[in-house]
Amino acid sequence: MTSSVLPVAPTRGRLRPLGLDEVRITGGFWARRRHTNATATLDHCRAWMDRVGWTGNFRAAVEGRIHRDRRGREFADSEVYKLLEAMAWEAANGGGTPLDEKITALTDLVAPAQDPDGYLSTAFGRPGQPARYSDLEEGHELYCQGHLVQAGVAQARARGEGELTKIAERAADHVCSTFGPGGVEAVCGHPQIESALVELARLTGRQRYLDQAALFVDRRGHGTLAEGEFGRAYFQDDLPVRSATVLRGHAVRALYLAAGAVDVAVENGDDDLLAAVVRQWEAAVARRTYITGGMGSHHRDESFGDDFTLPPDRAYSETCAGVASVMLGWRLLLATGESRFADLLERTLFNVVAACSAEDGRSFFYANTLHRRQRGVAPPADLDSPRADSGLRAPWFAVSCCPTNVARTLAQLPAYLATADDEGVQLHQYADADIATSLPGGHGVALRVRTDYPSGGTVTVRIGRSPARSWTLSLRVPAWTAGATAWLVETEGVRRPVAPGTATVTRVFRPGDEIRLELPVAPRWIGADPRVDAVRGTVAVQRGPLVYCAESVDLPDGHDVDALRVDPSVAPQDGPGGPVTDTPGTDTVTTITTITTTTTTTVVVAGEIAVPTGQGDAAWPYEPLGRPAPRPTTPAGIVLVPYYSWANRGPSTMRVWLPTTAEARPEGPDGDGDGDVDVDVDGNVDRDSGTDTGR
Amino acid sequence: MTSSVLPVAPTRGRLRPLGLDEVRITGGFWARRRHTNATATLDHCRAWMDRVGWTGNFRAAVEGRIHRDRRGREFADSEVYKLLEAMAWEAANGGGTPLDEKITALTDLVAPAQDPDGYLSTAFGRPGQPARYSDLEEGHELYCQGHLVQAGVAQARARGEGELTKIAERAADHVCSTFGPGGVEAVCGHPQIESALVELARLTGRQRYLDQAALFVDRRGHGTLAEGEFGRAYFQDDLPVRSATVLRGHAVRALYLAAGAVDVAVENGDDDLLAAVVRQWEAAVARRTYITGGMGSHHRDESFGDDFTLPPDRAYSETCAGVASVMLGWRLLLATGESRFADLLERTLFNVVAACSAEDGRSFFYANTLHRRQRGVAPPADLDSPRADSGLRAPWFAVSCCPTNVARTLAQLPAYLATADDEGVQLHQYADADIATSLPGGHGVALRVRTDYPSGGTVTVRIGRSPARSWTLSLRVPAWTAGATAWLVETEGVRRPVAPGTATVTRVFRPGDEIRLELPVAPRWIGADPRVDAVRGTVAVQRGPLVYCAESVDLPDGHDVDALRVDPSVAPQDGPGGPVTDTPGTDTVTTITTITTTTTTTVVVAGEIAVPTGQGDAAWPYEPLGRPAPRPTTPAGIVLVPYYSWANRGPSTMRVWLPTTAEARPEGPDGDGDGDVDVDVDGNVDRDSGTDTGR
Repeated sequence: MTSSVLPVAPTRGRLRPLGLDEVRITGGFWARRRHTNATATLDHCRAWMDRVGWTGNFRAAVEGRIHRDRRGREFADSEVYKLLEAMAWEAANGGGTPLDEKITALTDLVAPAQDPDGYLSTAFGRPGQPARYSDLEEGHELYCQGHLVQAGVAQARARGEGELTKIAERAADHVCSTFGPGGVEAVCGHPQIESALVELARLTGRQRYLDQAALFVDRRGHGTLAEGEFGRAYFQDDLPVRSATVLRGHAVRALYLAAGAVDVAVENGDDDLLAAVVRQWEAAVARRTYITGGMGSHHRDESFGDDFTLPPDRAYSETCAGVASVMLGWRLLLATGESRFADLLERTLFNVVAACSAEDGRSFFYANTLHRRQRGVAPPADLDSPRADSGLRAPWFAVSCCPTNVARTLAQLPAYLATADDEGVQLHQYADADIATSLPGGHGVALRVRTDYPSGGTVTVRIGRSPARSWTLSLRVPAWTAGATAWLVETEGVRRPVAPGTATVTRVFRPGDEIRLELPVAPRWIGADPRVDAVRGTVAVQRGPLVYCAESVDLPDGHDVDALRVDPSVAPQDGPGGPVTDTPGTDTVTTITTITTTTTTTVVVAGEIAVPTGQGDAAWPYEPLGRPAPRPTTPAGIVLVPYYSWANRGPSTMRVWLPTTAEARPEGPDGDGDGDVDVDVDGNVDRDSGTDTGR
Repeated sequence: MTSSVLPVAPTRGRLRPLGLDEVRITGGFWARRRHTNATATLDHCRAWMDRVGWTGNFRAAVEGRIHRDRRGREFADSEVYKLLEAMAWEAANGGGTPLDEKITALTDLVAPAQDPDGYLSTAFGRPGQPARYSDLEEGHELYCQGHLVQAGVAQARARGEGELTKIAERAADHVCSTFGPGGVEAVCGHPQIESALVELARLTGRQRYLDQAALFVDRRGHGTLAEGEFGRAYFQDDLPVRSATVLRGHAVRALYLAAGAVDVAVENGDDDLLAAVVRQWEAAVARRTYITGGMGSHHRDESFGDDFTLPPDRAYSETCAGVASVMLGWRLLLATGESRFADLLERTLFNVVAACSAEDGRSFFYANTLHRRQRGVAPPADLDSPRADSGLRAPWFAVSCCPTNVARTLAQLPAYLATADDEGVQLHQYADADIATSLPGGHGVALRVRTDYPSGGTVTVRIGRSPARSWTLSLRVPAWTAGATAWLVETEGVRRPVAPGTATVTRVFRPGDEIRLELPVAPRWIGADPRVDAVRGTVAVQRGPLVYCAESVDLPDGHDVDALRVDPSVAPQDGPGGPVTDTPGTDTVTTITTITTTTTTTVVVAGEIAVPTGQGDAAWPYEPLGRPAPRPTTPAGIVLVPYYSWANRGPSTMRVWLPTTAEARPEGPDGDGDGDVDVDVDGNVDRDSGTDTGR
């Protein structure tokens, strides 16, 4: 059996993805978020799009008043399509008929706005509007139609072909006719159409769509887009995909393009193209990624920025870049089978995607800062918010790409947990899940995964069904376990240490067999490469895959996160509440209706808190070394909480990277230049003659 | 005698400014820059404005084709006016007739575009254009007309009233009629009109202009501007000027508004308003200013950002914010007489304003980063550049406010050196200068200041003319001398230590008397308040008022600034070349035609350079403490150059804040959570039980 209920369905590659009909998440961390997504976020997004007029745009287009009445930015259509995609996957998860009806209702709104030739946009092409494709740099027409295609594919795979699929195919045909060989030689300023067309090719078997996607990928980097204020790198139009060595420019655009390029490379067996994307991913991960997995440090152009330019207090780390990084990582994992891609995917899911939504699924972070110095102001409940204010989550944004992007990701999530190949089944992400698939020859395999991950580190895989022949169960051992020890228990009482990468068990399994992975989730201090200048002299805490942070609501009254110093010579410990076992899962997500917010696992670290001094205590913050005296401190155990959970308890200040107690202004000589210490340009330093008194 | 050749001419206040006819800069650091400004930059700006069509806009407006042919952003007119202002001051400096002719030519271009009612804009109000004042948030109409008024005032003061002055008065009358009592209750999104109107009131004695300026100041902060993507704080329209506690929002807008508010406060004797601005200045200087004096860390909205959010690698520090800070500081100095304002003014002049222009005065920095990790790419010689790329100076920008702003500041500069009051003369900034003014009663005073400042610290003031009665010569002792010792020599052989602030000599001076100030300019290590997180674990070097930096062109081949570590226990020393005496000045600026670029005073510090590793040496830059091992280093003397001089020797990397040799990844416990170290939430840490092996 090969599932068709797949967000990404490559016809080639190292691993075969499992579909939403093969993997069900039944409880725990992600089940709670998926439940909230299904029961709150989807309707929330629809209601807001009605309120701000983005759904109404389709009606206005049909009624000939769009030039006057259009609402939202050029790309507002895409939010409707992303919501449709999310609904389709959620319907496959068990959301069923009620969601089908919502999909139909929304599709009925969209359908009449499609032009006879397949073109669909509410922002261009009608009387009083700019001409079609007159602003390829920022018009987002292909981007929007790409999301439309993706939604149509999702409907076909999740619920069977329907009206939305037909709309999508007509749009794709229009795109191919317009931009294909002999047509307009151009690309869209915002990539997205590429992966959508490949997916449609996979769905329909039509070569035309794949060829068009390949053409778009190869066409990029030749300067067909006008050089705007941010330069051509902003659109990745500065260098051909095959020549680039690192992800650059607008982070979401860069990652969407890379994902599309992988899709093309896989279908065409284009190893050079795949290698180019892997190289770019490696460089971005090594030098342009926050500890959370967040990408993009520039607010101005939403771009990656130079290597190691990763200031926590100016982190942009857009939620959508996190979603796009998951898209890219998943494709690279399927293509190569390498666990490093699943490692970053896990990090990004827990620390970017999960951080986006509030506990109630009705407000969102667009940017995900790693250091908040000033308490946020509650965003208006009834107005859309600017996207980059990151003090508190907002119910909606003027540019509201992130809520629907997270919604479709959470709806797809079960598909990212496991894969299969000719040898067996691979588990990449850990959650309570029931998996049923078949190995070559039609041999059915069923697994039940139970875990308290990420609070706890024990993952138990119970075999429910297995062929009588030998096969291999693979389990990812996360890279974050390096330096601690992970254990694999095949037979009770026998533990074998397993290194980061992949642990495998090959044997004839019998129903009832249990394999247990024990991951060392105890909290640990993490330091940064010294080239990440902005976090010099600080440390962070990671517990399993979760990055932690200090939040002011956990500090004594009147103290703030900037007053904290931590002592990295003392290991961090689990804090009050301790590891909690998540609410036991039930069989299907849709029956989980009694989920409550469980206690968060906190961490406590040794440190000290400086006495509050108020602000403005020095007239000028730069002084000769040794002045002024450090503020007095009191020792303290400092409670940290998972980064994803911050800002759920009212306005607060927060920091991920914590200064150490060793940190103090270095003592220096008085610098009066009286020559008592010698240094020359050849590097000879005569320290013996130094008799400085220090001020 | 009271000069009228004054950029700022308050009728009240603690100090009386001296005019361009009273103070002449005759040689040294600023004479060179002023010479370059007069002989290269002014013509460069005119040529570029012709090339990019900004001057042509006025002709297009008159010829009825502006709706089709207009070039540049909404505020392009203002560049023409700022150039006119710069030319007027430069003409007063001795540029004389040739500049007068250029002023006339440019004025003749502008004049016909003025509407009969005084309104002047090439961007609004004509057929096919948006209506007048239809976009107060971003239209910049009052901002542009403010610069026009300023230019008209400059012409009147520098060369006598002329056509430009009349145009300015008509524009100001239009503004008052339109926005005065009973008129449109609004303000401009970009302040500037406020200080211009006050200056015109000072010139003409007409109360109407002052009242209108006061009205604009009081009207701001009541939300008359639409809340855009960046919120109302962007325009300082979130809070009334009197209520705000810190400068915030767009840095240039905030500083221009503050300058205008000081002007209004001074003329109206409005001490509350003055105190409010002083309070905002204090808070911004204590918590929102780079060591260079640069203000504004956000690229996205060009704003200040939160307290202590000052990442060097994302410093925006717009040149125009530096100019605006000089404008504000000078007004506060005149109003209060407090040396702290002159201190920041000096820092900003040397480290922001002087950093903007290349040595040849034909390319400029718009943003002034404090850390450049990637070598810049040479900007196009024949195209305008994006404003925020800060790797190399560019000849012109799409938004080109900075070149003309620096040009008018350099042209005005002699007026910022000294003031007078009933007691005597005050010297605030040190440069070779000849000063001739008169004290009350018409007693003439002439001073000749000679110095090698800032390379050297000796300032000699020779009395040329003096009344027979006692008076007071005041000399600013810069705040940066704190902790070292400055000396005042009144009589050869007798040195008296003087503290930061103001040193005074009160006596009956005779021609030929010399007073000498000896400032300790030896280089010193500077540390930052720990709340400036982004520079934790680093130190900077300041030498006199100059901030220094490491630039890759001074490192051995193959090494980069990110490989540097410095040892702050060893005092920095003057480097190769040593302090240089600037080219001896001559009597007037215009006769200085043989200035050559003199050797820069370098500084050498002890440190080490890490062995180059190439990039991408780690797959992931965040690791448990203690891993990986630090890169091997070799001891070295590291040459630093003044920050203002960087990027004059081709593409380079650069950093102001230098990591110390003490910096290394802190060792930590292994964090395996086996409980060998205890810490609890009450702050009790039991270190004795810790037996970690340190892994």
